[in-house]
Amino acid sequence: AFSFAATASAQAKPEDQIKYRKAGYSFMSWNMGKIKSNLEGTYNKDQVIAAANAIAGIANSGMGALYGPGTEKDVGDQKTRAKPELFQNMQEVGRIATDFNAATAKLASAAATGDKAAVQAAFGEVGKNCKACHDKFRAD
Amino acid sequence: AFSFAATASAQAKPEDQIKYRKAGYSFMSWNMGKIKSNLEGTYNKDQVIAAANAIAGIANSGMGALYGPGTEKDVGDQKTRAKPELFQNMQEVGRIATDFNAATAKLASAAATGDKAAVQAAFGEVGKNCKACHDKFRAD
Ligand code: HEC
Ligand code: HEC
Repeated sequence: AFSFAATASAQAKPEDQIKYRKAGYSFMSWNMGKIKSNLEGTYNKDQVIAAANAIAGIANSGMGALYGPGTEKDVGDQKTRAKPELFQNMQEVGRIATDFNAATAKLASAAATGDKAAVQAAFGEVGKNCKACHDKFRAD
Repeated sequence: AFSFAATASAQAKPEDQIKYRKAGYSFMSWNMGKIKSNLEGTYNKDQVIAAANAIAGIANSGMGALYGPGTEKDVGDQKTRAKPELFQNMQEVGRIATDFNAATAKLASAAATGDKAAVQAAFGEVGKNCKACHDKFRAD
């Protein structure tokens, strides 16, 4: 038998929220790495489009719902590196996330054109937003 | 300092390949769950669009590159549930993956229209492909 848990995002169990948010970041990071190697080596337009669409799709999927109550600390077998500061500054996190989401949409648009210089610039903007969040809200 | 590993997908370390493929499936499963609850409860068009785009973006990101040599068995701290049969039947896996990718693209198109019945049908098709692959190629 095969089934999906039919729960609204906000209702996922705390350990699952932590698992899902780590999964989303991890998968984005694989795709950022692919775009980087395309920029530094042979440029494959289709691979960059696919990677950028994955990043934009994940970024804009409503990951904020994965920072619910009970996810400030390790739960079950899920360890978290989110800092307490994140949960105390949700407005600022929201601002970074909004910029980040817009930057990933721009990266996807740039990728679709195949213009390497535009992709390079948009990639840099996305990376700045990853870093802005980690510097403040993720433990090393 | 912040940096991305600049490696082509095929060159990611075996343990990272396992980590990334599990992350991709896990994040898709969260989004399938959200679509299911929208179909069973109050339908929020924007949430369904966002979830479907995340699924289609991940599915079409070239996950086949995450089944490279050395990923048939547990590596480092990464456990895998991929069955040996998967690595021995890459053509069949490829066929399922192609159907799956097309089904996720259809789900994203259906979501964009906001037609709940169309989303229901497309969602069922995607789920069939998840199940087809797991039945044959994933251990319980
Ligand atoms: C709005 C905040 C924010 C943004 C934007 C963000 N991150 Fe993160 N990231 C986090 C937090 C918080 C964690 C720790 C999550 C946890 O452990 O619960 C994290 C964790 C990670 C991890 C570790 C995942 C794991 O398996 O434990 C990686 C890799 C990562 N981020 C990469 C990225 C990349 C690449 C980007 C941009 C494309 C990005 N992040 C954008 C906040 C953010
Ligand atoms: C083409 C094959 C294939 C398709 C299509 C597929 N899966 Fe899987 N899935 C696998 C394999 C193989 C694994 C085991 C990966 C591993 O452990 O290395 C897996 C693992 C998983 C896991 C466990 C991840 C973890 O954290 O260990 C979940 C959840 C999952 N799949 C959900 C889904 C959903 C939901 C879909 C459809 C939207 C889907 N899968 C489509 C083959 C597939």
